[in-house]
Amino acid sequence: MAQNVSDEHGSKGVETISSSSSCQSSSSPQSSPYVHEVGVPPKQNLLKEIAAAVKETLFADDPLRHFKDQPSSKKFILGLQAIFPILEWGKHYNLSKFKGDLIAGLTIASLCIPQDIGYAKLANLEPQYGLYSSFVPPLVYAFMGSSRDIAIGPVAVVSLLLGSLLQEEIDSSANPVGYRHLAFTATFFAGLTQFILGFFRLGFLIDFLSHAAIVGFMGGAAITIALQQLKGLLGIKKFTKDTNIVSVMSSVFSSARHGWNWHTMLIGISFLIFLLVTKYIGKKQKKFFWVPAIAPLISVIISTVSVYATRADKHGVEIVKNIRKGINPPSVKEIFFSGQYAGKGFKIGIVSGMIALTEAVAIGRTFASMKDYQLDGNKEMIALGTMNIVGSMTSCYVATGSFSRSAVNYMSGCETAVSNIVMACVVLLTLALITPLFKYTPNAILASIIISAVVGLVDIEAVTLIWKIDKFDFIACMGAFFGVVFSSVEVGLVIAVSISFAKILLQVTRPRTAILGKVPRTATVYRNIQQYPDATKVSGILIVRVDSAIYFSNSNYVKERILRWLADEEKHVKENSQPRFQYLIIEMGPVTDIDTSGIHALEELLRALQKRDIKLVLANPGPVVVDKLHASKFQELIGEGRIFLTVADAVRICYSKMELEP
Amino acid sequence: MAQNVSDEHGSKGVETISSSSSCQSSSSPQSSPYVHEVGVPPKQNLLKEIAAAVKETLFADDPLRHFKDQPSSKKFILGLQAIFPILEWGKHYNLSKFKGDLIAGLTIASLCIPQDIGYAKLANLEPQYGLYSSFVPPLVYAFMGSSRDIAIGPVAVVSLLLGSLLQEEIDSSANPVGYRHLAFTATFFAGLTQFILGFFRLGFLIDFLSHAAIVGFMGGAAITIALQQLKGLLGIKKFTKDTNIVSVMSSVFSSARHGWNWHTMLIGISFLIFLLVTKYIGKKQKKFFWVPAIAPLISVIISTVSVYATRADKHGVEIVKNIRKGINPPSVKEIFFSGQYAGKGFKIGIVSGMIALTEAVAIGRTFASMKDYQLDGNKEMIALGTMNIVGSMTSCYVATGSFSRSAVNYMSGCETAVSNIVMACVVLLTLALITPLFKYTPNAILASIIISAVVGLVDIEAVTLIWKIDKFDFIACMGAFFGVVFSSVEVGLVIAVSISFAKILLQVTRPRTAILGKVPRTATVYRNIQQYPDATKVSGILIVRVDSAIYFSNSNYVKERILRWLADEEKHVKENSQPRFQYLIIEMGPVTDIDTSGIHALEELLRALQKRDIKLVLANPGPVVVDKLHASKFQELIGEGRIFLTVADAVRICYSKMELEP
Repeated sequence: MAQNVSDEHGSKGVETISSSSSCQSSSSPQSSPYVHEVGVPPKQNLLKEIAAAVKETLFADDPLRHFKDQPSSKKFILGLQAIFPILEWGKHYNLSKFKGDLIAGLTIASLCIPQDIGYAKLANLEPQYGLYSSFVPPLVYAFMGSSRDIAIGPVAVVSLLLGSLLQEEIDSSANPVGYRHLAFTATFFAGLTQFILGFFRLGFLIDFLSHAAIVGFMGGAAITIALQQLKGLLGIKKFTKDTNIVSVMSSVFSSARHGWNWHTMLIGISFLIFLLVTKYIGKKQKKFFWVPAIAPLISVIISTVSVYATRADKHGVEIVKNIRKGINPPSVKEIFFSGQYAGKGFKIGIVSGMIALTEAVAIGRTFASMKDYQLDGNKEMIALGTMNIVGSMTSCYVATGSFSRSAVNYMSGCETAVSNIVMACVVLLTLALITPLFKYTPNAILASIIISAVVGLVDIEAVTLIWKIDKFDFIACMGAFFGVVFSSVEVGLVIAVSISFAKILLQVTRPRTAILGKVPRTATVYRNIQQYPDATKVSGILIVRVDSAIYFSNSNYVKERILRWLADEEKHVKENSQPRFQYLIIEMGPVTDIDTSGIHALEELLRALQKRDIKLVLANPGPVVVDKLHASKFQELIGEGRIFLTVADAVRICYSKMELEP
Repeated sequence: MAQNVSDEHGSKGVETISSSSSCQSSSSPQSSPYVHEVGVPPKQNLLKEIAAAVKETLFADDPLRHFKDQPSSKKFILGLQAIFPILEWGKHYNLSKFKGDLIAGLTIASLCIPQDIGYAKLANLEPQYGLYSSFVPPLVYAFMGSSRDIAIGPVAVVSLLLGSLLQEEIDSSANPVGYRHLAFTATFFAGLTQFILGFFRLGFLIDFLSHAAIVGFMGGAAITIALQQLKGLLGIKKFTKDTNIVSVMSSVFSSARHGWNWHTMLIGISFLIFLLVTKYIGKKQKKFFWVPAIAPLISVIISTVSVYATRADKHGVEIVKNIRKGINPPSVKEIFFSGQYAGKGFKIGIVSGMIALTEAVAIGRTFASMKDYQLDGNKEMIALGTMNIVGSMTSCYVATGSFSRSAVNYMSGCETAVSNIVMACVVLLTLALITPLFKYTPNAILASIIISAVVGLVDIEAVTLIWKIDKFDFIACMGAFFGVVFSSVEVGLVIAVSISFAKILLQVTRPRTAILGKVPRTATVYRNIQQYPDATKVSGILIVRVDSAIYFSNSNYVKERILRWLADEEKHVKENSQPRFQYLIIEMGPVTDIDTSGIHALEELLRALQKRDIKLVLANPGPVVVDKLHASKFQELIGEGRIFLTVADAVRICYSKMELEP
């Protein structure tokens, strides 16, 4: 060690004081070895502290930043623009942008119309409700939302979730009116939940659902949806209402002999192959992205015409039959604001609202990152919430951003949310004029369209990456997947959330600790000896690093772990006849915070070490920790000269003091 | 910077490669400036990884360590000794230890007998059940427990909790038999919960209740209990069954005119003063610790004799009346194993079992730390669980460690758990012979004893310390306190748990980040500029440190925060006409782990920086992070020469490359 002493400073001497209550660099290093003082940050006003903490937690992205230093009138305008972003980007709108939005809007409209009819069926609602939900919500979103690329409308997973949760409360075939009212109630509360989360800036709550769990959940939901489409694809009349794979497959195979309708299967499977092929083409050749986008509509047109021409419905091919013509009727009176169904709608609304949020925010962030603009998650939630509240009053059910449609939107060259307005207009036209034409559309084609749509939700690539990176994440992913496929959507969701929470709790309760050694050929770099096996431990001094804040959730563990490191190392030292330990240095760099339980654990550790005649030394405590050590009088307990700026300083001083003893 | 380049190494040159897939120190530093390689730890077998993770989580204290390298017969004996520690310490028992245990046992017996009668009343049970619970549970514990100082029996807070939870289900005055059966059911499930937690080594779950919340909860419970004793102290006949302060005080004052019995008040208040004075004496003069220990029994004897002598019960002084003579009757048949009450007993059992655990483990740890012996928390839980299961079958209710009695035990010189056996024997004698003598004991004296007992639970010192150290902890403490006092025990408990969880979640979701600067007069030490205002930032290079693992719960926040630091600093740099940023270095030391969301966030950050023509550099990644960066191909994304061992290395290389540009 001796050769390194003069590396940093150039002189020798006696040790200096540790921390003081003011921030300063130390005095000139003349005849004392320069031991740096550990800086204590200036004392902050309690209210300022609380304000700063609240700001960091809830307003982390500083949304009011451009409101600063503005005259009141400007603030009012900025405020309006914040609520209705269309007022801001609408000013810069021009013809070339409209061109892009028009093409994109028409493309996603052609994609969404057949999907809407199919997704409404997933939610056990009549087809027109899917179209309603692609009319009003996108319009509201265009005025209030900030994402330029998201395409709003009903989506497969939320439709499935809503359908299965609502079905448990009211049977859609026995009581379709009550079912519908409950659907609107759930949509209202979903929107309310989303609005409240965004308004109170609690958006970070949806971050608690881990990405891996979502991947598994979505994949499982996709498989479930695809399996349910076998009813429409094979023309089976008797089908289970359960969603798990065992029930579905037994329904399919038990009706294999007589229940499969060959005409339906012909239509369904041939168009399914067609759709999958176009999807593949679009994936391989980026410039043919529009092919899989218009393929569904073309399939619908061709199949409707052929069914009409051959009157295939007389041969057992199920058709859509009537889609009620006309735009959204108001539905305020149909929402349950009180009574037992209000409570049920509330619960279903919260769950579907949060899943819808997760999808929309993920889409919004992805495209914002690709096009490099900022997206305020909480503001988005307010927009989505308002959209669903208004939707619930105009016969829509929960709408959110759709992955596939947003991707098509993006690739078709959308510029702003006007593409959603264009899409809504096309849907309006459809509702007003074209719906009778869907009379002969076979259900099989809708089934094929849905299957080809959800196939994209099964993200094998993401799963492989998760397997490679983090095995715990992989368990979460698989747990959610199998929960959905083998049990039900709710069970899969519960598993996804539980595993996400368990991961957080485990991270908190078992922080990492490491023994440090000096990396060779450096004077001052001490690193984990497991990562750097060449790092040399210092004789007589045990250096431990704690890699987390020390809170009540882990303080006891940290104390016991350090004592166990000591016990193991002492055994090792005894076996090799090395000098015993006289100092234990804790590298406190990663210990970002410490609370009363943590201080208590340090005190117990100090006592336990004193009994073994080992001195406790702390190195590199952060500002918060220094404050609390001071406030708790731990500094007096530990004694003078026991807190250092760096591990290197601590080792040097302790080593010099050690050499004096025999 | 130039003058420091040769400090560490002594030569100049070109940069070297960053990480490689094998652990090594780098080649000799001849003509290259020595840039250390970042070590990649050797790849571990997946099963070994999982085994190590499970071990650290559930077997952190290595309980099977002494089982290693032992012959099978020895392992069997060690196994028996692990379940029944008495077999181990019983071998070394001798007369001097028995002396200590005898005195301690007699002292805590004198303390526990009056307390038991009072606490049973708190739980709305007849007095003998308190005595039963000081007979069987301590005996079971002495055979299976590991703490040498803990005194087992009914305790105030758990009695209150049990009493108020049970009262909500069954009215103790209307249906005392059913109430009792439910109490035994709850005790059984409490014991079962404790046993299961200990057996599956899930003991760390109770660490999730923060110390500050417990202090608040206990203080609130103490106040509540003391207020309820006003019924017995003032001789009021009509009293509320609620526990909150408003109901209690209105009961007290509404009966002020006619309901207060002067004789009762005389007895109660005078003995209360006597007990508090003896408590004060015992606190001030450590050698008089036995004074407050025997004072309750003396008070009971004196007051019983005086009430008998003056027949004060005819003057309205409420007396205990009959305590059923004889030892514990079996009660296996009285436990509800099925039916609606089983479910209710289950819920009440879990809650009271976990609170009881928290107390017992806290006591066990405190004394183990004072006497410097190790305590296996999970093994203790198994002992406590067994004790309560057996107790539920022998007419006992939930027993646990009592703070005050354990302290008296300790000060009286207990050596082992035999003190509990001695106490149990005295209780046995009492039950068999002495109970008729309690017939004329006034309730007022029991009330005074309880008040003087719980006064110690209000720990003003701890609360002041919490206020000084951690304001959030203080909010948790006050929330729990006021919840219990103004609402009910359950509400206070829910508040305590919720705030504890919220603290964990906040810690996880908003990690600290800091901008680093070089501490003056050092070559290589970079620290938080808020803590060290003299630290100088490096021109053109922004150094940010992230103080936590980057998981899904905070990855988005971390990315946005770093970009916000960048935006703020860029604004500052522009105002002062300083050169723009070309490099952003992230100090990854405290980032102990990263998952798929974290990698994703790093990739988005990289892209965002590339768009601004800023290069991303990582410094000092730990072993786990290096592994995952490698597995996720992020290393290829970030490019060669962008990962360094220390911030100093990174700054040096980046600075040298920067100087080449105009």
